[in-house]
Amino acid sequence: MSEIRVLVNGAKGRMGSESVQAVREAADLELVAQTDLGDDLAATIASSGAQVVVDFTVPASAVENATTILDSDACPVVGTTGFTSADIEGLQAKATGLGRGGLIAPNFALGAVLLMKFAQQAAKFLPDVEVIELHHDQKVDAPSGTALKTIELIRESLDQQAQAPGKDRPKETETVAGARGGEYLGIPVHSVRLPGYVAHEEVLFGGPGQILSLRHDSISRSSFMPGVVLAIRKVGSLDRLYYGLDQIINL
Amino acid sequence: MSEIRVLVNGAKGRMGSESVQAVREAADLELVAQTDLGDDLAATIASSGAQVVVDFTVPASAVENATTILDSDACPVVGTTGFTSADIEGLQAKATGLGRGGLIAPNFALGAVLLMKFAQQAAKFLPDVEVIELHHDQKVDAPSGTALKTIELIRESLDQQAQAPGKDRPKETETVAGARGGEYLGIPVHSVRLPGYVAHEEVLFGGPGQILSLRHDSISRSSFMPGVVLAIRKVGSLDRLYYGLDQIINL
Amino acid sequence: MSEIRVLVNGAKGRMGSESVQAVREAADLELVAQTDLGDDLAATIASSGAQVVVDFTVPASAVENATTILDSDACPVVGTTGFTSADIEGLQAKATGLGRGGLIAPNFALGAVLLMKFAQQAAKFLPDVEVIELHHDQKVDAPSGTALKTIELIRESLDQQAQAPGKDRPKETETVAGARGGEYLGIPVHSVRLPGYVAHEEVLFGGPGQILSLRHDSISRSSFMPGVVLAIRKVGSLDRLYYGLDQIINL
Amino acid sequence: MSEIRVLVNGAKGRMGSESVQAVREAADLELVAQTDLGDDLAATIASSGAQVVVDFTVPASAVENATTILDSDACPVVGTTGFTSADIEGLQAKATGLGRGGLIAPNFALGAVLLMKFAQQAAKFLPDVEVIELHHDQKVDAPSGTALKTIELIRESLDQQAQAPGKDRPKETETVAGARGGEYLGIPVHSVRLPGYVAHEEVLFGGPGQILSLRHDSISRSSFMPGVVLAIRKVGSLDRLYYGLDQIINL
Repeated sequence: MSEIRVLVNGAKGRMGSESVQAVREAADLELVAQTDLGDDLAATIASSGAQVVVDFTVPASAVENATTILDSDACPVVGTTGFTSADIEGLQAKATGLGRGGLIAPNFALGAVLLMKFAQQAAKFLPDVEVIELHHDQKVDAPSGTALKTIELIRESLDQQAQAPGKDRPKETETVAGARGGEYLGIPVHSVRLPGYVAHEEVLFGGPGQILSLRHDSISRSSFMPGVVLAIRKVGSLDRLYYGLDQIINL
Repeated sequence: MSEIRVLVNGAKGRMGSESVQAVREAADLELVAQTDLGDDLAATIASSGAQVVVDFTVPASAVENATTILDSDACPVVGTTGFTSADIEGLQAKATGLGRGGLIAPNFALGAVLLMKFAQQAAKFLPDVEVIELHHDQKVDAPSGTALKTIELIRESLDQQAQAPGKDRPKETETVAGARGGEYLGIPVHSVRLPGYVAHEEVLFGGPGQILSLRHDSISRSSFMPGVVLAIRKVGSLDRLYYGLDQIINL
Repeated sequence: MSEIRVLVNGAKGRMGSESVQAVREAADLELVAQTDLGDDLAATIASSGAQVVVDFTVPASAVENATTILDSDACPVVGTTGFTSADIEGLQAKATGLGRGGLIAPNFALGAVLLMKFAQQAAKFLPDVEVIELHHDQKVDAPSGTALKTIELIRESLDQQAQAPGKDRPKETETVAGARGGEYLGIPVHSVRLPGYVAHEEVLFGGPGQILSLRHDSISRSSFMPGVVLAIRKVGSLDRLYYGLDQIINL
Repeated sequence: MSEIRVLVNGAKGRMGSESVQAVREAADLELVAQTDLGDDLAATIASSGAQVVVDFTVPASAVENATTILDSDACPVVGTTGFTSADIEGLQAKATGLGRGGLIAPNFALGAVLLMKFAQQAAKFLPDVEVIELHHDQKVDAPSGTALKTIELIRESLDQQAQAPGKDRPKETETVAGARGGEYLGIPVHSVRLPGYVAHEEVLFGGPGQILSLRHDSISRSSFMPGVVLAIRKVGSLDRLYYGLDQIINL
């Protein structure tokens, strides 16, 4: 198997430099070029023969970069945020016209995407569920965006079940207000904030005599790299541009 | 939605009596009869109008019971163990001929089945994995059968990946022999035995900066009931007899 | 070392019969008699030569039983609940007068007592703490009594610290009300309720770059037995009657 | 309460710069000076009026630095490694002669020290125990030094118990060699190695119907800072020089 030729745009930024390292460490990927603001992206794609271009830059140039990549016969893997729906639709139309694969993902946390998919599946069979998320004590909002997104997916799954509801739960009393957590779409959610945590989420499913728990711990930016590498490997075989890492994961 | 009419055979046994209770507690199921050794199963199915028959009896009568159930126009959900491959194939042929749904499952631990499915899926994306299983201190063999089965499924998943291997791991040194656990199909497995545990399994996936952990805790026989109830609900819509709870779960 | 001679009063009750079994399984304890309502407790202590009497009966007879035990030259280990403060003080005065050891404990959950002691100690060094307790879904009140008691002990510990407070935490915003849990004595507490849980508590301490977590899982009445056995072994060397298992544990 | 005046020696090193930041963030500590190799330590202590000097330098200069600090009427808090027993004894004699407090600690991981202390205490009451340690996949030796140290402390505690042993455990069979882990001083130890972990340890105590688990997660060098700050606050009230953080923790 020949290696996939990869260019990283925004290579000096935090996510870009992690991407450079990740590409170098993957035996089936070859880093053929690195570019940053001010470099001629189209020319470098042409001269390096890059097949996939990873872009972690700034919103202001993101649409232009993605357009350039598609026009240069390469597949874009874009982690830059700030796209409008219209931007995404425009780029998707262009990619489809070219029959070119690509991905724009607001977040590449593969483990978190897996956790959400599994939670959605488990809820079909074990509908009693609560979510705990734990973050560092400088995070100001609660619950986390990932917890809310997880609950939305679980809710969707629960609503598709035709089955009759189980037996009633007793009416609960809180002797300390808030002890039972928040309730979002009917599902309890608990947020812990302590120094020492980074970003963690736990989904707990209970059934008679059993508990199924799914947990994801993310402690550094490098946790996004398996998702970036997965996307690099995959875009070459796609014929359109997807939005969201979960869209290109086939479980 | 009208209720599904259920007969429990072996109703006085441990699993049978749990099943009786589980059927009673499910709003969409109706318990229409209970039978045991010595009762006329065919006659009771006929008189009660049972659509599904749950069978938790003894190996000696299991094949005969399953045959009787199929001949009585009902769908079997069988948890009795001791079937030979030939027994199963014979019953499957019969059910297919009748276009009748059914299930024979050596184990109805739904949470454990989900854990195994998720582990198999996660291994595609996070190939570094270890398994810990924890059981009571009267268990004589290690690792548990569930851990071995889980590892076999993970191995299958890893072997299907075309991707090049990651960077090398350092050569390890055990200063206490066995500290790194056992290795089955190339995957480390660790068995903990302590009073206070019942049956627990944890699958840990690591990637740069992140850990995804899947855990199942089973503390009583009642943990099998969601699997039994799921099967009761499902067999009516099937047109063959399946072996293994995982075969009728569509994630 | 000769064995300690033990009589179990209330031997047919749930806790009593667990105690009978626990005494039988401990190599250094000898079960010399079992009594129940209607038996002559004083006469049986005398004839059996019991040195320690375990009492799990009913509140109505608890004071009388404890008095009888002390008057019979034996040491009481009493798990019956329903004593008033005056009852306890009266029995303590009597025991002190006799120089006799004894214990009355509303709960013998040794693991929970250890968890509370450790939490109290850890708070001296890692003052950022949150408590999660997880119980079955038929429990109507939240938080659990054990969680409240744990927080009271942690609070006591925090208040004894002269140290200046750390840096400020940011002002938090709950986008889902209650997500950050309840706050008792300034410490966040989160209650999870799911089928499959029995009684579990987790105390999480955070510091820069580290988390210390203490967890106790109790899944059956037998979890009280190590506390009962500990008390049986200890009362013979005491010269007064204590109230509360934590009072006779020297860490 | 007036602030404690602190000088950090080796302020440009990794641990030194973390210490500078930790002192600045503690409201009751004042950073009065920073020194490094080549600076005149004695003169700077004198001019800054430092009461406590934190030293994270190199073994070659560690003894001389500690001597200088003591001679300058300040209390040393030394994290530099490489002291011989004779070095330590010499410095202890000097400090005792001066009635001066101080600390030399090979490791300031407060959470790990607490975990070990608690494990040692819990073993008195729940003698069935196993240890799991989890580290990144570049660690070559197993088990970790911390796990071995923890087991030594637990062993010490178990050996002090006069109580008769419990009932026999069944003879175990490993169908995969090593599954039951390593055994050190009679206690099973399991080492997990996966990318994504940093340094984690879990001590599991089992008893009938219950599990007590103690876990410490360390994810960055900053986890040593609470131990450094604790030592800074404490040395002023001591009248001798201690070796080991655990020696100045009173639980």
